[in-house]
Amino acid sequence: MGNNIYDNQKSIQELKAGDKIDAFVLVKSYDVKKTTAGKLYVDLNLVDRTGEINAKIWENPKASEEILVENSIVKVRGEILEWGGALQLKVNKIRALLENENIQISQLVPSAPIEPNEMLKEVKDFADKIKDIQIRTLVNNILEKYNNKLLFYPAAKKNHHSYRGGLLYHVLRMLKTGEMISMIYGSLNTDYIFAGVILHDICKVLEMDSDDFGVVSDYTMEGKLLGHIIQGVKEIEIEGEKIGLDREKSIVLQHMILSHHYEPEYGSPKKPMTIESEVLHYLDIIDARMFDFENVLKGVEEGRFSDRVWVLDNRSVYKPIDNNIK
Amino acid sequence: MGNNIYDNQKSIQELKAGDKIDAFVLVKSYDVKKTTAGKLYVDLNLVDRTGEINAKIWENPKASEEILVENSIVKVRGEILEWGGALQLKVNKIRALLENENIQISQLVPSAPIEPNEMLKEVKDFADKIKDIQIRTLVNNILEKYNNKLLFYPAAKKNHHSYRGGLLYHVLRMLKTGEMISMIYGSLNTDYIFAGVILHDICKVLEMDSDDFGVVSDYTMEGKLLGHIIQGVKEIEIEGEKIGLDREKSIVLQHMILSHHYEPEYGSPKKPMTIESEVLHYLDIIDARMFDFENVLKGVEEGRFSDRVWVLDNRSVYKPIDNNIK
Amino acid sequence: MGNNIYDNQKSIQELKAGDKIDAFVLVKSYDVKKTTAGKLYVDLNLVDRTGEINAKIWENPKASEEILVENSIVKVRGEILEWGGALQLKVNKIRALLENENIQISQLVPSAPIEPNEMLKEVKDFADKIKDIQIRTLVNNILEKYNNKLLFYPAAKKNHHSYRGGLLYHVLRMLKTGEMISMIYGSLNTDYIFAGVILHDICKVLEMDSDDFGVVSDYTMEGKLLGHIIQGVKEIEIEGEKIGLDREKSIVLQHMILSHHYEPEYGSPKKPMTIESEVLHYLDIIDARMFDFENVLKGVEEGRFSDRVWVLDNRSVYKPIDNNIK
Amino acid sequence: MGNNIYDNQKSIQELKAGDKIDAFVLVKSYDVKKTTAGKLYVDLNLVDRTGEINAKIWENPKASEEILVENSIVKVRGEILEWGGALQLKVNKIRALLENENIQISQLVPSAPIEPNEMLKEVKDFADKIKDIQIRTLVNNILEKYNNKLLFYPAAKKNHHSYRGGLLYHVLRMLKTGEMISMIYGSLNTDYIFAGVILHDICKVLEMDSDDFGVVSDYTMEGKLLGHIIQGVKEIEIEGEKIGLDREKSIVLQHMILSHHYEPEYGSPKKPMTIESEVLHYLDIIDARMFDFENVLKGVEEGRFSDRVWVLDNRSVYKPIDNNIK
Amino acid sequence: MGNNIYDNQKSIQELKAGDKIDAFVLVKSYDVKKTTAGKLYVDLNLVDRTGEINAKIWENPKASEEILVENSIVKVRGEILEWGGALQLKVNKIRALLENENIQISQLVPSAPIEPNEMLKEVKDFADKIKDIQIRTLVNNILEKYNNKLLFYPAAKKNHHSYRGGLLYHVLRMLKTGEMISMIYGSLNTDYIFAGVILHDICKVLEMDSDDFGVVSDYTMEGKLLGHIIQGVKEIEIEGEKIGLDREKSIVLQHMILSHHYEPEYGSPKKPMTIESEVLHYLDIIDARMFDFENVLKGVEEGRFSDRVWVLDNRSVYKPIDNNIK
Amino acid sequence: MGNNIYDNQKSIQELKAGDKIDAFVLVKSYDVKKTTAGKLYVDLNLVDRTGEINAKIWENPKASEEILVENSIVKVRGEILEWGGALQLKVNKIRALLENENIQISQLVPSAPIEPNEMLKEVKDFADKIKDIQIRTLVNNILEKYNNKLLFYPAAKKNHHSYRGGLLYHVLRMLKTGEMISMIYGSLNTDYIFAGVILHDICKVLEMDSDDFGVVSDYTMEGKLLGHIIQGVKEIEIEGEKIGLDREKSIVLQHMILSHHYEPEYGSPKKPMTIESEVLHYLDIIDARMFDFENVLKGVEEGRFSDRVWVLDNRSVYKPIDNNIK
Repeated sequence: MGNNIYDNQKSIQELKAGDKIDAFVLVKSYDVKKTTAGKLYVDLNLVDRTGEINAKIWENPKASEEILVENSIVKVRGEILEWGGALQLKVNKIRALLENENIQISQLVPSAPIEPNEMLKEVKDFADKIKDIQIRTLVNNILEKYNNKLLFYPAAKKNHHSYRGGLLYHVLRMLKTGEMISMIYGSLNTDYIFAGVILHDICKVLEMDSDDFGVVSDYTMEGKLLGHIIQGVKEIEIEGEKIGLDREKSIVLQHMILSHHYEPEYGSPKKPMTIESEVLHYLDIIDARMFDFENVLKGVEEGRFSDRVWVLDNRSVYKPIDNNIK
Repeated sequence: MGNNIYDNQKSIQELKAGDKIDAFVLVKSYDVKKTTAGKLYVDLNLVDRTGEINAKIWENPKASEEILVENSIVKVRGEILEWGGALQLKVNKIRALLENENIQISQLVPSAPIEPNEMLKEVKDFADKIKDIQIRTLVNNILEKYNNKLLFYPAAKKNHHSYRGGLLYHVLRMLKTGEMISMIYGSLNTDYIFAGVILHDICKVLEMDSDDFGVVSDYTMEGKLLGHIIQGVKEIEIEGEKIGLDREKSIVLQHMILSHHYEPEYGSPKKPMTIESEVLHYLDIIDARMFDFENVLKGVEEGRFSDRVWVLDNRSVYKPIDNNIK
Repeated sequence: MGNNIYDNQKSIQELKAGDKIDAFVLVKSYDVKKTTAGKLYVDLNLVDRTGEINAKIWENPKASEEILVENSIVKVRGEILEWGGALQLKVNKIRALLENENIQISQLVPSAPIEPNEMLKEVKDFADKIKDIQIRTLVNNILEKYNNKLLFYPAAKKNHHSYRGGLLYHVLRMLKTGEMISMIYGSLNTDYIFAGVILHDICKVLEMDSDDFGVVSDYTMEGKLLGHIIQGVKEIEIEGEKIGLDREKSIVLQHMILSHHYEPEYGSPKKPMTIESEVLHYLDIIDARMFDFENVLKGVEEGRFSDRVWVLDNRSVYKPIDNNIK
Repeated sequence: MGNNIYDNQKSIQELKAGDKIDAFVLVKSYDVKKTTAGKLYVDLNLVDRTGEINAKIWENPKASEEILVENSIVKVRGEILEWGGALQLKVNKIRALLENENIQISQLVPSAPIEPNEMLKEVKDFADKIKDIQIRTLVNNILEKYNNKLLFYPAAKKNHHSYRGGLLYHVLRMLKTGEMISMIYGSLNTDYIFAGVILHDICKVLEMDSDDFGVVSDYTMEGKLLGHIIQGVKEIEIEGEKIGLDREKSIVLQHMILSHHYEPEYGSPKKPMTIESEVLHYLDIIDARMFDFENVLKGVEEGRFSDRVWVLDNRSVYKPIDNNIK
Repeated sequence: MGNNIYDNQKSIQELKAGDKIDAFVLVKSYDVKKTTAGKLYVDLNLVDRTGEINAKIWENPKASEEILVENSIVKVRGEILEWGGALQLKVNKIRALLENENIQISQLVPSAPIEPNEMLKEVKDFADKIKDIQIRTLVNNILEKYNNKLLFYPAAKKNHHSYRGGLLYHVLRMLKTGEMISMIYGSLNTDYIFAGVILHDICKVLEMDSDDFGVVSDYTMEGKLLGHIIQGVKEIEIEGEKIGLDREKSIVLQHMILSHHYEPEYGSPKKPMTIESEVLHYLDIIDARMFDFENVLKGVEEGRFSDRVWVLDNRSVYKPIDNNIK
Repeated sequence: MGNNIYDNQKSIQELKAGDKIDAFVLVKSYDVKKTTAGKLYVDLNLVDRTGEINAKIWENPKASEEILVENSIVKVRGEILEWGGALQLKVNKIRALLENENIQISQLVPSAPIEPNEMLKEVKDFADKIKDIQIRTLVNNILEKYNNKLLFYPAAKKNHHSYRGGLLYHVLRMLKTGEMISMIYGSLNTDYIFAGVILHDICKVLEMDSDDFGVVSDYTMEGKLLGHIIQGVKEIEIEGEKIGLDREKSIVLQHMILSHHYEPEYGSPKKPMTIESEVLHYLDIIDARMFDFENVLKGVEEGRFSDRVWVLDNRSVYKPIDNNIK
């Protein structure tokens, strides 16, 4: 990832009560508010690659407000307090980025570890391995259609892969695992595996509204009323019709999308009925779980337990001594 | 329904061990088999409007086989035995229908109590009450498209309304109740109520294979892998596109179809999020339950309980004294 | 509803942080408290027809306390702050109602949209439609017995119909729907439908303690240990005995009350076993859901989603464009 | 129980395919039937204290029929066959009991191990230990009212204590355990413990129809529509009213009956809310489970597992070596 | 319990907003913190036998800090405020215990009502009643091994018996009940009952880290990854091997430990399959529930309901009038 | 697998009613029984690699009985009947294997597709890839200990891999997938992956009694009372102690075994808390599901659905056209 600003400043994730900081951060949002006593102050949310912190500017709120722009980089100086059980930054000084300070927004936005264009290329390489020309065409057409959004969409609003490029990163790791598993279980048809993986979540670009930083503000109206699984089924039906995709192949692919959450209460009204749809589910869940475990264990010392993690069914997870997570 | 053969013969539902019968019935299926001892015999399944019974022809099986044709009417004479806990007809005599015996297949096939064309007309009258021209056009186009099948499709393979014309009958009673409920709950939009009711199950004509007698042999490939709810959602998407239906209306209608089973484990990945989709679910379930109760109570005397009924969660139901079910 | 004070003042439901208000409200409760710093202040809860807001009087708490009486009307002036995510009224001025200010408490208390005496008359008209003289007598006797309480009892402590007259309003709408459904499903015995609806929740008057404003302070001892369903079963047993009600009819009615919540986990140890008890459940749930949907959708713009609604299983509900809810 | 016929004959429970028997048994039911081949035969169900077996009389069915009377004792000779996985007795000879054969029906009917009158006396002794005169009177009145039925009623149609006198035996063992537990947990009020135990199942005499042998033919109409829990609640309400029982005590007792199955899905709409109702549940379940375990383990050798037992959640249970069950 | 400091001071459980106190308490933990405004203060948690309260020292925090030692006794003077819905003690004066103030820590630490050494002796007496020499040796060896920890370990981190000596107290009451129940149900083998009860929770001393006051700071690494049930199974396997315990007895005992939580979701992968393991479960749950009920009801007046109690499935429990809980 | 007898005879799986057969099969069990009419006959169960069929010998049962030996090979001639919905072989001729008929039992016993010794060698090669010497020693010692049993044990009594060598085959495929997944998810420690996979089910050799053909007659006493998961945990504890395995590593491995069924109701009282135990679960379930799908799809034509498959949650599965399963 090269030389970046974290070499010189503490990341938000590392902060503790009592710390003094002097760092570049991204302004996610801000608001001018009034205390019960009637005093004005600025309430801000600041992020870097590692996390987010709430901050308050008690002095000269009006002056500060003038330099604040959402999604811009600022430099802040202040100290960390604990308030109501949460950390809070008391800002003593804040200023805009100087011209000569060569910092990219991408350095401050949580993102997938591989560059989006590179990921997209790799995904397209997998698409090209599909032997059936109809299915390959379908997959390439849909990739083309959503090309732009794929470059920044996260895989979720919260939870696993909820960062810039997360959707592509999720798909890419599933494709690699899917290719390997198909070597061991020879009865798997890689055409369906590759197509199913690439298309399984692709309608998340229709289900959620994401900004260019991979931050999802909300679900769309169609996303809420139907959801990306149903949207994905329709996508294949319609794009398949356009290219004369065999009905049997179209239905088999639609079924893969429909069943990939496996259980009705997770959104799949049908359980997998083909061997490739069965595998698709496990590729999906393994990648999600690996993401969550790695994400949690990053912040845990060897021989220690994490706090309870909501997305892992509230488990507290353990990092054995001398294992490989750096 | 006029004067029919039931005036002169015992119905299958009424038969008891020891009865002698001499009746017209429909041959649903037959097969020549061999006993463990090596003796040939004919194994048949016979139906009338009220039910089905297994029968055996022990004498001259070859001769009998010659006159047997599936879905044809025969006259049988014989006696009812109990074998392994079930009733069985021992056939003593069997012959084909004579030319002068004026009996229609429809008299022997379980059917809805209203004539199909009349029901379809009533349904179309409701469609015409839809005030929004786009939605009305959509509904009429889809009704037109499946016109033929609607005239005989049942509403299910087993359980409620699983007889000839059952789908239309189910829709029609829901429309009437929907119209009345909308008078009491003025916030309901009857356009969505009528459209939702008419379209909610319409893709059962794609999900199941039914013969002209309303007997479903099996689910279709797409029916099994996707199901009539998902098929219905796609139907509205595609037919809506064709007529330029406003996207918002299309999604609202698709959501009604998607959510009408209410619970994920019954096939709806989204719960109702509009007031009309909430009501649609109750219209559906009330009509199904009324059908099942009426169907069971027909055979129960006042002041008595029925046997346990699988489709009613295995309940045994009670018929109060002097109530109105004839 | 006539000309009322809402013509001239913002309702509590409409308030936003920053608003200045000058309005008549009802004092629900108040208390004099001390800050950590030792300063006295008055903490109040104020209501109008549309909702409730917490308020603080920081200046002259002792003086204010003198004019405060629970369930009295006051006029307040102040401004709306946001504190800890919730709105709070900072009271600048407060005074009792003047003699010449012609405002009724009923104008400030959330109530059913129909006048209680009118509702009770309509319910009694339905009772009179019961053809069986024994059942009619039973229903009239019980209505008579709880006549006074029925005029103001809500249908619940929280959730659906939890306002003045809510119980009668709930029963009335169910009666109307029940009458209509009985036209479509001719096998229903309206005697049991009308009696069941009128009696199904009537022991809520024994289960809860409500004041004259329809506000439930708590459940009664018997309410907590037995509940209105069991209380209702006993009511019919005992009142039935008094008038020589046929045992069969009494048990059928008791069963309707017992089973009307349908599922054991919602309080019904028996599922409905008669067709009228099956319908009673759906009349009940439809009216509750319509109430909740209408209640939520009132505050939602067309084409928008509500917040998540706890009583609707935490659903966020959608109001389609151009629908009929005003 | 003294010297009985089991000293001289194999019990039904011990029979194996291939055995020849010559034994006194009770005729539970019989029927003359016809084979598919048209041959008449007698189909009987025979019982002794240990179980039941199906039997067939192939020769001279008409003659046999003449001596058969339900609930009479006969002597049969025959051999045990295995047919369709079940044992069947092929009867070679059958005759009525001779005058000089001094065998009582009670010797052949499954019964509680203590004589009914003795059990009833012991239960009444516990009732007399109730210190509160109102509660003691209530309990004694209800015992008196159902005195006759209690002498033979089983505790269930199937499962635990489903034999003659089973209800009293169940209550008696619970009373003894309840008394002991109250010594350890001093906060328990034995008045409520004794009254609760005696009354908890007493309306099973209203819920089920039992013959004098403790065999339940069916549930009653009120039993099916309400159930013994609800019937028991009403019993206390009504009998309590008659003697002027304090309302608080009446409701506390009604709550004990109502909650003693603990979970809604087992028939208790309220969970126990008093310490005595909590204990009542455990007294009940312990006695039922001890009965089931002892019943199953009787037939199991040390160091072996039983077959799966439906009433014990389909568990196969193990009898350790050298344990105390004889 | 003799004459103790509660004779002269209000217990923490009794405190109400507005109270002034002057009392001996134990310092559980303390910390020096800074307000948003930058002011230092001391934040403390204080306990006595009855509960815990948060306290603040606003004046001279530095001076106070010097006399504070965790787990030491202090005397505090101050007043009780309500802050954010919780009680808080504003400390006006605090000092260490004086030499002549003869107060024991045990007087301030929540503990079982019987002296630990006495309880341990009683438990060992039960162990000596085990007739099988191998099982008796096993039980005595394990008791010996954990002798020291047993004298202070609680039975849980939170919930039932979570106080000093709670584990022994729990075991002792279960032994007494077990002995009595075995008198009624003669098929129970008291060897397994006594051994099973003594060993069922004994590995809680390995699962949790408790200080000498019976306060559990956390679960151990092995406790989290395996749990006391699995640890207990291994304990018997290994200690059994050492003394040549018959394999059959060892497995039967291991099964008792493994199955005593009854349901998989509570930690038992096998349900009880022996009669003694079935009973062990009920001894365990009865003692836990009696503890919880008694604990809650202590603070409730006759004829009143408690608040909702989380550990009792969120029930609110009722204390009947004139019952025996003092 | 070379040239085998299936080249010359129809396999049991392929049989249909009406077929005549003349084939070598293995006698799994046999019994002489009597018809209701008193006639003796032989009832046999015959197997080959593909399945099992019930057979009857009606003629000369005594003579046939003399040549029958369990687990011996016989040649049978006869015809296939359908009886009660199941296929049955009516044996016309049966004889023992002739000396010159060179057929091995292994040719008739369902087995894993790889030779056991070869599988065991491959598994040991994976064990040797474990870098940590303690863990490697542990794994090798346990493999050595159960070496003999591993060569023929199935992975289950019924369901997936329930054939000769099934346990090793299951482990081997999981090892291969585990190795590949570890390339993609670099944070996985292959030492734990390999050790966890090899040990996860190894105590099935203690849980079940299998004969040399991989047919499990029953579970062992310890298997029923504890189960292979708990047995596996103890195995690591004890074998780890012997070689001085670090306690942390031992517990981490024990936790992997304990948690690998993931859900309590499937036998894991703890959910995975390390990343390797999380993955172990998915390796296990993927291999089981691939086995089941491949097993079912073998018998299904392209473009068709299978019957419902109990072990796949009663799903009917679909085989797409032109896929790779031969």
